[in-house]
Amino acid sequence: MTSRPPVFVQPTQPFKPVPVLPEGDRFGTHRALEPAGALPQPAWRIDNDFSRLFRGEILLDVETLNIDAASFRQMEEAGTSGHSPADVGGGPVGQKVMETVATRGKQHNPVTGSGGMLLGRVAQIAPLADGKVARVHEGLSVGDRVATLVSLSLTPLRLDGITAVRAESAQLDVSGQAVLFESGSLVKLPHDMPERLALAVLDVAGAAPQVARLVKPEMTSVLVLGGGGKSGILCAAEARRKLGPSTGARRVIAVESYPRYADELRALGICDAVLGIDARDPVAMRRAVLEANDGREVDVTFSCVNVPDTEMAAVMATRDRGIVYFFAMSTSFTKAALGAEGVSKDVDLMIGNGYAEDHAAHTLAMMHEFPAIRALFETRYG
Amino acid sequence: MTSRPPVFVQPTQPFKPVPVLPEGDRFGTHRALEPAGALPQPAWRIDNDFSRLFRGEILLDVETLNIDAASFRQMEEAGTSGHSPADVGGGPVGQKVMETVATRGKQHNPVTGSGGMLLGRVAQIAPLADGKVARVHEGLSVGDRVATLVSLSLTPLRLDGITAVRAESAQLDVSGQAVLFESGSLVKLPHDMPERLALAVLDVAGAAPQVARLVKPEMTSVLVLGGGGKSGILCAAEARRKLGPSTGARRVIAVESYPRYADELRALGICDAVLGIDARDPVAMRRAVLEANDGREVDVTFSCVNVPDTEMAAVMATRDRGIVYFFAMSTSFTKAALGAEGVSKDVDLMIGNGYAEDHAAHTLAMMHEFPAIRALFETRYG
Repeated sequence: MTSRPPVFVQPTQPFKPVPVLPEGDRFGTHRALEPAGALPQPAWRIDNDFSRLFRGEILLDVETLNIDAASFRQMEEAGTSGHSPADVGGGPVGQKVMETVATRGKQHNPVTGSGGMLLGRVAQIAPLADGKVARVHEGLSVGDRVATLVSLSLTPLRLDGITAVRAESAQLDVSGQAVLFESGSLVKLPHDMPERLALAVLDVAGAAPQVARLVKPEMTSVLVLGGGGKSGILCAAEARRKLGPSTGARRVIAVESYPRYADELRALGICDAVLGIDARDPVAMRRAVLEANDGREVDVTFSCVNVPDTEMAAVMATRDRGIVYFFAMSTSFTKAALGAEGVSKDVDLMIGNGYAEDHAAHTLAMMHEFPAIRALFETRYG
Repeated sequence: MTSRPPVFVQPTQPFKPVPVLPEGDRFGTHRALEPAGALPQPAWRIDNDFSRLFRGEILLDVETLNIDAASFRQMEEAGTSGHSPADVGGGPVGQKVMETVATRGKQHNPVTGSGGMLLGRVAQIAPLADGKVARVHEGLSVGDRVATLVSLSLTPLRLDGITAVRAESAQLDVSGQAVLFESGSLVKLPHDMPERLALAVLDVAGAAPQVARLVKPEMTSVLVLGGGGKSGILCAAEARRKLGPSTGARRVIAVESYPRYADELRALGICDAVLGIDARDPVAMRRAVLEANDGREVDVTFSCVNVPDTEMAAVMATRDRGIVYFFAMSTSFTKAALGAEGVSKDVDLMIGNGYAEDHAAHTLAMMHEFPAIRALFETRYG
């Protein structure tokens, strides 16, 4: 890896701090308007008046909105069917975004229910009641360029204008402001990696830290379904690091049905076996995994395969009292629960939590610790 | 509790064992016919020829089918619209059941996708390849009256006739046979409690054993949502037992919005607080739970409330690095995952697994260990 110059410049215009009111809770219920007192995500409309802040909030000057892909597509389709995009910048999608934010105080697509995240700079940090800065805002300074790690669907946002829309990356360059609550999560963008790479990695920031927690020294085998995808590679690498070098005694086994991804994962040299099979066939998958693991079921399985009907394969490949951790949002709660019960598998079934303390720092650091993965990700997502 | 006489009598007719073939796997793929080699649950049709068994199987003489409530209702409705129930016993539902079992080799309702469970007697136990009896069949003898704990949707079944249909309990008395695989789960029905009570308790057999595993000596507070229902009471009782007597230092807090259930739970004296609030309001629930717990979030939450949109309340009441265990089948995987991420809650989210080793024995024993709960359950479900 060659070192790169900083990608971003510091802001030039000074900012006059706004007053901080003593009210406010860590979840942002103080900004819910319809209904009042609700959580900001389910609320229909939230308060985006940033002439004052509430304790624990952080105010950001917004530069770019990364819209959720499903939301962007829906707005593109709706926008081309009758609306006039002439009155605002950014065409039909820009108009939809301006409308939504004006109506709801947040970019929470009322059709898809989804949001996205944003890039911006720290404008002001409102302390807590004790005068201290919230734990999540420690180490941040005014002017820092940051990415938010909580959804736009719960982030108070005011837009003053839209300067560009990039359909290929579902991004809008905007001028405006946003607030994150104490329960919000954001990360300072690193200066030593391209922004696109950082965003791609942050998108799956929760995966590797959970692997680091769950893979214990006494375990001898870890299975990763969808091991060749972005989160799958990070999971496999973290499992390898926890289990130690590949000597055959402690195995990282991946399943990846897409041949190019499987080859790229093999080339990384972190897995003992990469199986090119379809995780929707639990019987075939179980057979292949047992064959790759001396006839034993694995200790823990991480499912990163965003395909329905793969719950049973994960359950059946895992030993009794082992763990099946589902990162994929396509996972069905009932299929996992009833599937395990149906074959009397005494496994712990876990719902992937995208948040873990310091997850962003952990995952960004992996781009330094695993240069071959960084090189692959730069090719794929850079 | 007064002791009761045995409810069931031993069978009288002798049974001639059938040959056992050397093939077979623990999951029953050897009996899948369409498609061959599949798991029996997703398979359209499975082999119900019991003139021979495969290794690890147990053959049962079936007496009663407990049909899943949704399935029974669907068959009642479909049956009254045009079919003639004259040609088989049991009316329209009986006819539907006979049709389904004849077509699929199992009582797997093709419309609802659900099954149920059955009551019967052990007719023959086929040993494993090493001549030993499978671990799950240890302690069982021919003639024992048993209940199955895996779904009828994956249980090979042959019906010879239907003798009664009881709509109020969604039960059919039948003559026929069924097979359970090595991965199946069944339990000997106790002689010292009424069958209806045993079945009601077995229906939620997985709950209390998971509580026993997850509540650790260092924990000081456990929350049970839906604490007044059947599984909620068992969870609260198990949590109390693990935390020790109610001195205020280590608290079991329950949420139960149905006033009668809340009163009955209070009368049991196992909870430090029973909160009569709606778990669909996460802000109000969090406030009430913190108030009942000296301002602290709880260590672990068990959600037994079978109502949508209660995931967030469970997440927000639980401390960082705590556990939220979802037993309710109404739980949404995405609402739990995105909800925790949205408020940056670093909690372990778990999918309730209805199976745990020895869960049936554990839960049936609670009817002796907690006589007040047994008395309440006999009133409610007996």
